[in-house]
Amino acid sequence: MADEVKLYGFDESPFACRIRIVLNLKGIKYDFVVEDLFNKSADLLKNNPVNKTVPVLLHKGNPISESLVIIEYLDDVWKEVPILPEDAYRKGQDRFWAKFIDDKCTPALLKTFSCRGEEQALSEAHEQLQFLENELEGKKFFGGDNINVVDIAATTIAFWLGAAEEALGIKVLTKDKFPKITEWSANYINCQVVKDNLPTKENLVAGFKKLFGVA
Amino acid sequence: MADEVKLYGFDESPFACRIRIVLNLKGIKYDFVVEDLFNKSADLLKNNPVNKTVPVLLHKGNPISESLVIIEYLDDVWKEVPILPEDAYRKGQDRFWAKFIDDKCTPALLKTFSCRGEEQALSEAHEQLQFLENELEGKKFFGGDNINVVDIAATTIAFWLGAAEEALGIKVLTKDKFPKITEWSANYINCQVVKDNLPTKENLVAGFKKLFGVA
Repeated sequence: MADEVKLYGFDESPFACRIRIVLNLKGIKYDFVVEDLFNKSADLLKNNPVNKTVPVLLHKGNPISESLVIIEYLDDVWKEVPILPEDAYRKGQDRFWAKFIDDKCTPALLKTFSCRGEEQALSEAHEQLQFLENELEGKKFFGGDNINVVDIAATTIAFWLGAAEEALGIKVLTKDKFPKITEWSANYINCQVVKDNLPTKENLVAGFKKLFGVA
Repeated sequence: MADEVKLYGFDESPFACRIRIVLNLKGIKYDFVVEDLFNKSADLLKNNPVNKTVPVLLHKGNPISESLVIIEYLDDVWKEVPILPEDAYRKGQDRFWAKFIDDKCTPALLKTFSCRGEEQALSEAHEQLQFLENELEGKKFFGGDNINVVDIAATTIAFWLGAAEEALGIKVLTKDKFPKITEWSANYINCQVVKDNLPTKENLVAGFKKLFGVA
């Protein structure tokens, strides 16, 4: 079966990491093809001519890209260990929050780091994070007792955010302001399936220093 | 049943228009609550505290927002006249293209108008449109013989784009460069269910003139 599913990514990609977590949760065997974004393979460009980036999933030779689209696809094909809830309304809510993390929360966080923690940007990032803080009210994970698509989308917040904070010496997610997200992060990255697929923090910190031009 | 489904929107919103088309295609009765974005109702803000905008769908009192998320929800609950295909791979592809329209194509078009048709921005918009042109190869609609989620997402391109072009006197979608999108646009806005839900072009042109500061 190993040649049936192929994932193009690289260790430090949070979006490829999402897919690796789902593949592992569902027990799907796959080949991981490591891509160098500075020297993309012809295969990657052929399989993702629109975005020209990772992750790309190849299933039986058919390519699919965009991490949230890939997660829905995996959930549609492999029914074991569902990542999205069965109930249509809860599913809609989870889709909303996963999209929120990509469209609103992550850009606000990136802007904060680009602006080196400038007050207005930080306040906007806090405003977005507060919505997630509220969503965790009374829950261990966004998915309740088990992780789901929102938790997996928020992998960036659980792990990449801390590395960016360390690289730039800026604290965005304070325990004081966001006790629930802080607790959730610790629980989430402690899940074996998550832990197994995270890159080393040193590499991420070095990557963020390069990205944001920090010596 | 009319009090079961409520849609908050306004006539000129392309995102609310998407939902009206889906509701009509599926024969779902609903109340349309007209919102004024300069004076938002307390109900709108209560039901969409994150994005604070339309469209919001209220079903049995439960709010849901983000047009593509609402479309998936409607398709999950009302199975008649499916908007997304049954096949998991085709469904993934359609989700990819609908997302592409919102994340890549529409921002490139808006940038072109903001830059008053500046060459580099226009060339980037053309690059994105070319992907859609290729997708229409051998098909009447993105969905094949019938309209689907990609057609509905592309309502902006079929109708709003022409109004923006008229408002600013800039032609982006030329018949010469994009014969298939041009033909598709004509076919699409001619579908009764689409035609019935479009705003008047005059209002849109006036709106775009205001948005882009054109006298």
